[in-house]
Amino acid sequence: MRVLLQDQLLNRDEVAIDIEDRGYQFGDGVYEVMRVYEGQLFTINEHLERLARSADQIRMKLPLRLDVLKERLIELVSENSVQNGAVYVQVSRGVSLRNHSFPGDKVTPVLIAYPLPGKKPAQEQQNGVQVNLVDDMRWLRCDIKSLNLLWNVMAKQEALDKGTYEALLHRDGTITEGSSTNFYAVKDGTVYTHPANNLILNGITRMKIIELCSENGIPFMEKELYINERTSFDEAFISSTTIEIVPVTKIEEDVIGEGKPGEVTKRLQELFRKITP
Amino acid sequence: MRVLLQDQLLNRDEVAIDIEDRGYQFGDGVYEVMRVYEGQLFTINEHLERLARSADQIRMKLPLRLDVLKERLIELVSENSVQNGAVYVQVSRGVSLRNHSFPGDKVTPVLIAYPLPGKKPAQEQQNGVQVNLVDDMRWLRCDIKSLNLLWNVMAKQEALDKGTYEALLHRDGTITEGSSTNFYAVKDGTVYTHPANNLILNGITRMKIIELCSENGIPFMEKELYINERTSFDEAFISSTTIEIVPVTKIEEDVIGEGKPGEVTKRLQELFRKITP
Repeated sequence: MRVLLQDQLLNRDEVAIDIEDRGYQFGDGVYEVMRVYEGQLFTINEHLERLARSADQIRMKLPLRLDVLKERLIELVSENSVQNGAVYVQVSRGVSLRNHSFPGDKVTPVLIAYPLPGKKPAQEQQNGVQVNLVDDMRWLRCDIKSLNLLWNVMAKQEALDKGTYEALLHRDGTITEGSSTNFYAVKDGTVYTHPANNLILNGITRMKIIELCSENGIPFMEKELYINERTSFDEAFISSTTIEIVPVTKIEEDVIGEGKPGEVTKRLQELFRKITP
Repeated sequence: MRVLLQDQLLNRDEVAIDIEDRGYQFGDGVYEVMRVYEGQLFTINEHLERLARSADQIRMKLPLRLDVLKERLIELVSENSVQNGAVYVQVSRGVSLRNHSFPGDKVTPVLIAYPLPGKKPAQEQQNGVQVNLVDDMRWLRCDIKSLNLLWNVMAKQEALDKGTYEALLHRDGTITEGSSTNFYAVKDGTVYTHPANNLILNGITRMKIIELCSENGIPFMEKELYINERTSFDEAFISSTTIEIVPVTKIEEDVIGEGKPGEVTKRLQELFRKITP
């Protein structure tokens, strides 16, 4: 496997991380996962822009210009012959003596990128999944795609332990999002999802879904959804770069709608399929 | 420098972290910083117990038995000839293909430990410091000493940028703790600090201060302190393994007590000095 380290493509065994990398000791960094379809990085510009925004929000300078990074990522996909899969990119605040405060401008942030397998969950997309409710204990800057993912990890594992597909996080009675997905409910033909504020990550797939709704006359609204109103949802679904759009047919033991993927959800899946190769 | 990796002491340049280490990608791990006084690890048992508790709370098994780890840490201090300083220990959930869920029992957590400089802030201990208020945006499991420290980093940097020594975090009007310290106020001779619940880390120095209060007839109480009552504090101070006890003489522009280290604070500093070599 070839790995991007700063602006160089190296063999995987040539790339090692320092014990004093701030990504390792503080989770002091940001990341993106980009989907590759038929050898092409999907929505690469949107991912790069979000990476830059995340870095900006934690007051970190990216070590490469975005246009250079874009070129390198395209080379990475090509050198690894990725046809259908994903690319992981992470930037940490660099290597320095452990200290909470920033290390100063002389320390260069560390960028790595490498291919990940991207497995489209075909069966789940077709049949829908069950999710379970987990308290949203995360920090209050979930809009930043940071490396501080421990609660996401704990929540996802709890979901799997209970035999469900994903954890649906809730804070103060409101459904925020999944552990690594955005969440949507459909009521009377309108698609609802949590506002893109500090409590959720504004997913690239979420942005695409909003575009698709707008372009195709599907009513859409950002609005808080409450866990207590879940039995009134006609449909529900989750989305992410990796899973695309997956219908939710059960929240805990509560059946959503008719317990199978709903019509609006299926239409959005179809529209999404059309914009991906 | 010699570094502990699992149960082996190696030269620093022999130790490298994998890009797929879960500590690097998710902050999926826990840590401790232990103080060394005159070649001895101070309160090592308390730190090891807390490390084990943190690991347990994130459902991770430590790769070494605590008694073996203790021996290795003593060897580490000795081989590095640390006289006065600190030791950093971190355990992450190991190396595996990136996926939020746990990697399973076949993946061994990665333990590293190495010496850090420990600089007693003598002048600050003597004269006291100014702190500034920063919103506590952290997750809701601050009782776990995890690697998800990005908000602590951001808060500390904001404090330094404002020319103050530490960030005093507050949530819903309540002072929780500093970015890497516990906080205390003294009113009418009684020492108050935030209850050791999910909103703060129960510091080892904090535990020692409570013991010292109890043994020396200094009234002590766990109680929420509000930012709005800060001008009514007679004294205030912060504590941590690294800084020990440092008086707080100003919160933002509000002078605490007489604007110099208070009597109870100075007495606790003296008592603390007696239990450290």
